[in-house]
Amino acid sequence: MGFQPYHSPSTGCEVGAVLFDTFGTVVDWRTGIARQAATFAAAHGQALDAETFADDWRALYQPAMEAIRSGSREFATLDTLHRENLDHVLRRHGFTPDRLDLRALEELNKSWHRLPPWPDSVEGLAAIRRRYIIGPLSNGNTSLLLNMARNVGLPWDVIIGSDLTRTYKPLPRAYLRTAEVLDLRPGEVMLAAAHNHDLHAAREAGLATAFVARPTEYGPGQAADLEPESDWDLSASSIIELARGLGARASCAA
Amino acid sequence: MGFQPYHSPSTGCEVGAVLFDTFGTVVDWRTGIARQAATFAAAHGQALDAETFADDWRALYQPAMEAIRSGSREFATLDTLHRENLDHVLRRHGFTPDRLDLRALEELNKSWHRLPPWPDSVEGLAAIRRRYIIGPLSNGNTSLLLNMARNVGLPWDVIIGSDLTRTYKPLPRAYLRTAEVLDLRPGEVMLAAAHNHDLHAAREAGLATAFVARPTEYGPGQAADLEPESDWDLSASSIIELARGLGARASCAA
Repeated sequence: MGFQPYHSPSTGCEVGAVLFDTFGTVVDWRTGIARQAATFAAAHGQALDAETFADDWRALYQPAMEAIRSGSREFATLDTLHRENLDHVLRRHGFTPDRLDLRALEELNKSWHRLPPWPDSVEGLAAIRRRYIIGPLSNGNTSLLLNMARNVGLPWDVIIGSDLTRTYKPLPRAYLRTAEVLDLRPGEVMLAAAHNHDLHAAREAGLATAFVARPTEYGPGQAADLEPESDWDLSASSIIELARGLGARASCAA
Repeated sequence: MGFQPYHSPSTGCEVGAVLFDTFGTVVDWRTGIARQAATFAAAHGQALDAETFADDWRALYQPAMEAIRSGSREFATLDTLHRENLDHVLRRHGFTPDRLDLRALEELNKSWHRLPPWPDSVEGLAAIRRRYIIGPLSNGNTSLLLNMARNVGLPWDVIIGSDLTRTYKPLPRAYLRTAEVLDLRPGEVMLAAAHNHDLHAAREAGLATAFVARPTEYGPGQAADLEPESDWDLSASSIIELARGLGARASCAA
């Protein structure tokens, strides 16, 4: 009774869908990858600095996508890019990937499908879903995002992976094509993200924006994205707090 | 404990995802369109044979898609085709669409986003979802299928509308591209449908198949699709019965 959808001051529109950056904003990739890499290393009788392994694997993510964004390489899924990067990061950490079982490597690559949500993610998403369409707006491919959601119960309404838009954030098409598929104007879609650069690109494309602080995404020494760096429509310390900002309560209807 | 995914005799694969034809198989479009058309006609002070109106609107569906399937027209969404066909069917039923309010017509066109599920659909889908990925495999566009799901609580894991595959069933690409996006082999995907022709095309493309009987989809005089016309992997009189056939119980884990 009396619920009013959030009206974005920056776009002038009522928000109909709240879409989330996923790696870092909804799930804790560093902890999840480190844990699974440690298990892999132990099974192969090898010592591993698992957090550094996770950081190193993640660090290859942007350069791999950049080749596609720049047009120097045809679109390839994030699963494919992760798999290529895995060989590099394994070598750097003393493994010889050519001698490892291909199926074990494929399984390790799918660690990105099995990442723990931040403690507030599932509850916060469920609250927002009561009032808004929710989905990821991620560079992950659809099957990755689908498996991730089923593994930990992320209650997405819809999953439009980067393999469907065939582009990677922060290119404008990633945001605009997603809004188009939802049959919403860009200003009716809000991106929630822990990364200021993603929000800058979303705003540039005409979307509403919300910052969700994840100050330990990169571990205890994280230096960037500790604070909102612009006047985003909303800023929150968790997805539950974001739900409140959007007028979507966790329990009773407003 | 001890659950074994369904093994399709026809494809030789374990099924990982069960995808559903939507109009007729999951939702009762005839009742839903007739009811909303009757309300529209009453609001305009005009008499209407609402069931015939629904049948006539639906009858224009295949010819409109055929222009796209044959390549004589570029891809257009089902919302667009429905909207074009609406003008024709309104004229046939004594309306003058050019004199009607465009927003009211747009709203009437979105009747296809607001269709009642068959009584077993939501419970059956929830049961299957416990064991398998579920989604529509429909000629509907993503936003249509998403709004339909939110309106009545269809618990899809993923929605890959025809606007994302950019093709219409029964062309093979509609089935094959969907399997590819799910990162499954065609034989690991089952199509469940109330229409034998859809199942024939799915089998031809390498999918597992299940017939769900909907003997009143076209009203009391329905003459086609009353029975399975081939040895589909499974045949059921409801989605709840299909869940049982797939080993997915509605309540306790098997």
